[in-house]
Parts: sequence; C-alpha cells; structure tokens
Amino acid sequence: MKKNNKKTINKKSLTEQIYSILKEQILNKEIEFGEKINTRKIADKYEVSLMPVRDALRRLANEGIVEKRPRVGFFAKDFSKKEIKEIKELRRMYELYCLGNYFQNIDKEKVAKLREEFVKSDQKYFDKIDIKLHKAIVNASENNYLIKRYNHLVKNFISLFSFTTYKRFEDSKKEHIQLIDAILDDNLKKAKEIILKHLG
Amino acid sequence: MKKNNKKTINKKSLTEQIYSILKEQILNKEIEFGEKINTRKIADKYEVSLMPVRDALRRLANEGIVEKRPRVGFFAKDFSKKEIKEIKELRRMYELYCLGNYFQNIDKEKVAKLREEFVKSDQKYFDKIDIKLHKAIVNASENNYLIKRYNHLVKNFISLFSFTTYKRFEDSKKEHIQLIDAILDDNLKKAKEIILKHLG
Repeated sequence: MKKNNKKTINKKSLTEQIYSILKEQILNKEIEFGEKINTRKIADKYEVSLMPVRDALRRLANEGIVEKRPRVGFFAKDFSKKEIKEIKELRRMYELYCLGNYFQNIDKEKVAKLREEFVKSDQKYFDKIDIKLHKAIVNASENNYLIKRYNHLVKNFISLFSFTTYKRFEDSKKEHIQLIDAILDDNLKKAKEIILKHLG
Repeated sequence: MKKNNKKTINKKSLTEQIYSILKEQILNKEIEFGEKINTRKIADKYEVSLMPVRDALRRLANEGIVEKRPRVGFFAKDFSKKEIKEIKELRRMYELYCLGNYFQNIDKEKVAKLREEFVKSDQKYFDKIDIKLHKAIVNASENNYLIKRYNHLVKNFISLFSFTTYKRFEDSKKEHIQLIDAILDDNLKKAKEIILKHLG
C-alpha cells in the first residue's frame, strides 16, 4: 500500500486515486471475492467524501471486477463457474488464433530461454514464466490491439483464477515444456492440442 | 444532444456526465478524427470546472478513442491504417472463432429473417442489418464475456470505420446474402471463406 498512501497524494483526481487503490487491492485479493466494500470506511481512511469512492467503484463495476447490488452496495465480484469458464474460453480463443495464424512468428529464442526457466522453476516462480510463455504466443501476432486486450484479460480476470492451475503444479510444468517443445519443433498441430487441453 | 443537456442534470458525477457526452460526440463524429478537444470551451458550455472535463478525457484516452499529447492537449483519436487493420483483424478473430466452434448454434430463424431485410435494404438501413447478422454469429457462442467484448469492439471502434465498407454497398449486400445462404445451407467452409474475404 506504500505507493498509494495518502501521504504521497498526486495530481490525479481523487476518483482516479481511489480507483487505482481499490483495483490493486482486488487484484491482490486483499479484498476477496464476494466481499462487501465499505464505502464509508474507505472515505474515512483516505479522508475524502463518498463521491470519489462511489465513482471509483462504479468504474470498477463497469470493468466487471466489482458488482453493484441496488440498495445493498458494492461487492468484489464473485465469479460463477460459468463465468470463469467463459473467461477461460476467451483466453483460449486468443491463443489458438495466434498459434494458427502466427506460428512461424513466435520468438523461438525467447521460448527456448523460457524452457530453461521452466525446468528449474518452483511453484512460486512458475506463474511469471507461465504468463511469459503465453504472451510470447500472443505477441507473435504483432497486433497491438489484440495484445493489449489479451493482456487486460489476463491481468484483470485470468490472474484471479490462477489457483485453479496450481492444484496440479508438476503436471502443468510438464505441459508447458511440451508446449515449448512443440513450438521449437514447428509442430503446430501438437501445440494447438496442448493449448486446448491445458486451457480447456 | 437532448439527452445530455445540462438542463436534465442527473445523479451521476460531473465526470461521468461529461464522459458520456464526449463519448457520444466522438462516436457520432460530431467531433472528428484528429480534432483537438477544447477543454476550456467544454467546461464553459456545461458550467463545470476543468477537472471533470480532464478526468473524462483521461478515461476516454484510456479506452483508446482519445489521444493525450503531453503539453499539447487532448485530441479525438486519428487511427492509422495499421491500427484500423489491427482492429479489423480482432473482429475477424471473434467471428471466425464463433463460426468454427458454434456454427450449429447460430439462430437460423433469425438469420433467415435478416436475409429478407437485406434483400430490400437501402444503404441507410444496411448498417443496422449488417451488425445484426454479425452479432447473430457471435451470439451463437452464448459466452457473455466474449459477446460483451465483441460488442464493445464494434460499437467503439469498428463503427468508426464503417465508411470503408460503404464504398461498395451493392457488393457488400451480395456478400452478406451469400454468407446467410452459407449459414442456412450448413456450409461452414463457405461461411468462413466469405468472412475472411468480407472482413479481410
């Protein structure tokens, strides 16, 4: 919370500052899925009126990580199984599209380096390498709009569900190394199969 | 501008109101591509301070339809050819994915009705039917996140470039009827070919 402390107040509007603080807290799970957000407490803590707090929460509701229940208040979004499935499908769509259309364009040098990192990774570091590998696939499109939207999806949604993967850390590690080998072997068919299984 | 007139001021914050007004003006092309946005003039017109105007513009910049040039000001985004190409590719990705994975799920009754509307459409009405057809393809996924993001892309970006299609209205009409016939004939291969050509 150091960065967003009120002592370091900046030129951004109050709404924007409260928005950044709350977003970070939700993405870091300091505020948990389904937790009620106490607007009065936040306003008191940062010594602002209720208006910028509500504005910030409305923006977060608009982005889909906060839920506004009329006459009840704001809650950190509690994703249903169906919603998680939908979001994962969306991610899969991006990756399959980029594999299918830009397979030759994937940065193999980078992917080969990631292979080494995967081999020696522990569970804590795994997450970061995982994201790097999937990004390398999507970056191959060189489509900035596509890349930006994919990154937004991963940062704001997929990262919230990452615990689902971690149940099977060793399996996941093996799958990722297989995916890398398929890319390095120019085996598009196999790469697609692994993505379908891995992100299925 | 009737709806957003200051006489009908509502409970939303000033920033949100200015945001809605400016967004509508950009999407309607009342503010044109590349046009400088005069923050002082807007603040005077709606009798607000500069802060909510700047906040609204920062939000629009964040969404990608306004550009902030440091020490110069805010401009309605002027899309480069590369950017337009990237955005169109993104749309194509959605539609090809939905065709490929949910072809059997497309609402054929709806599509058959759209065929009749296409046949008798003039250039003015064409746009609306066009969007309905493409939405019917994407709606077949029944993935709310996917549908919402696709709609956002079409509303906020694709609609800004619609003039490019209209150069060849009669050709486009023919292509759409061919696409509908491919869907009604269960011919996925042909439907994909037409989408690739039409959104290429």
